[in-house]
Amino acid sequence: MKYGIAIFPSKNLQDKVNSYRKRYDPHYALIAPHITLKEPYEATEEEIQEQISYISSVAKNIDPFSILINKVGSFHPVNNVIFLKVNEADEIKSLHEQLYSGPLEHQQPYNFVPHLTLGQKLSDEEHSDVLERLRMIDIEHEERIDRFQLLYQLDNGSWTVYETFRLGKGV
Amino acid sequence: MKYGIAIFPSKNLQDKVNSYRKRYDPHYALIAPHITLKEPYEATEEEIQEQISYISSVAKNIDPFSILINKVGSFHPVNNVIFLKVNEADEIKSLHEQLYSGPLEHQQPYNFVPHLTLGQKLSDEEHSDVLERLRMIDIEHEERIDRFQLLYQLDNGSWTVYETFRLGKGV
Repeated sequence: MKYGIAIFPSKNLQDKVNSYRKRYDPHYALIAPHITLKEPYEATEEEIQEQISYISSVAKNIDPFSILINKVGSFHPVNNVIFLKVNEADEIKSLHEQLYSGPLEHQQPYNFVPHLTLGQKLSDEEHSDVLERLRMIDIEHEERIDRFQLLYQLDNGSWTVYETFRLGKGV
Repeated sequence: MKYGIAIFPSKNLQDKVNSYRKRYDPHYALIAPHITLKEPYEATEEEIQEQISYISSVAKNIDPFSILINKVGSFHPVNNVIFLKVNEADEIKSLHEQLYSGPLEHQQPYNFVPHLTLGQKLSDEEHSDVLERLRMIDIEHEERIDRFQLLYQLDNGSWTVYETFRLGKGV
């Protein structure tokens, strides 16, 4: 089964991001707006149970943290993906690193650039048009992240949450 | 904000249900196949925090249980909804009752008939055609339920998981 790990930000931020994804992101209907912490990977039922214990202990040792968003970016020319850049707080970097260690050691397909996708799979022309327009969005948003989710993918490409992990020792 | 509580069954069962929903359920892209435990309701940020403590204690006191599915049903003439009927295990009834008690006391819009929707919002004619066809599905499926989820609805109508609750005292 294919699993992935992601942060779903607040409803407000998701609604805002979806207003762009609706037009520019063909994955709009497959998953809610999210910050990917670990790219999709294969695991068996046995592996995932061990991984869940590991992820729980990782989550407990990282406190809730703030993310700041104030810039639109693009992965062009590698990928025609337009996104909201998320500042690289130490906690999110540490979270990402640990989600690629121990029982979760996998090759990282990209450097970690925490982001919320606004558009993807755009043609070169669309990409430069849309990017030019979106760069003018005036966004300055800060919010607190206190949880993240382990998801699995269904045959139709959509994602279902399997488990929620709360950050920190509180609660 | 609008919240709801649901069980997502195994990937296998979700994939099977989606193969019908794709054609017959206009909510196909808004949420994964699920068994509704509590219909959508409004709650504030403060209310939901109190409710989450309550739901956690409810979850701890109900052990994981098996569901059995072997029948296609319909809510016609009340609603043109075609579904897989889920046997009414004592645990699921108790779970549902407690999710309508205490800080979660709300009017119940319907009697509780645990089910997985296959199709909805069908015209009367579609409904009887599709129901006749689906009644011939040979389904006999049993699986163990060990968790359920609290979700909230985005402005586009789709649902995001906020929290996972594991059943029982184990783990």
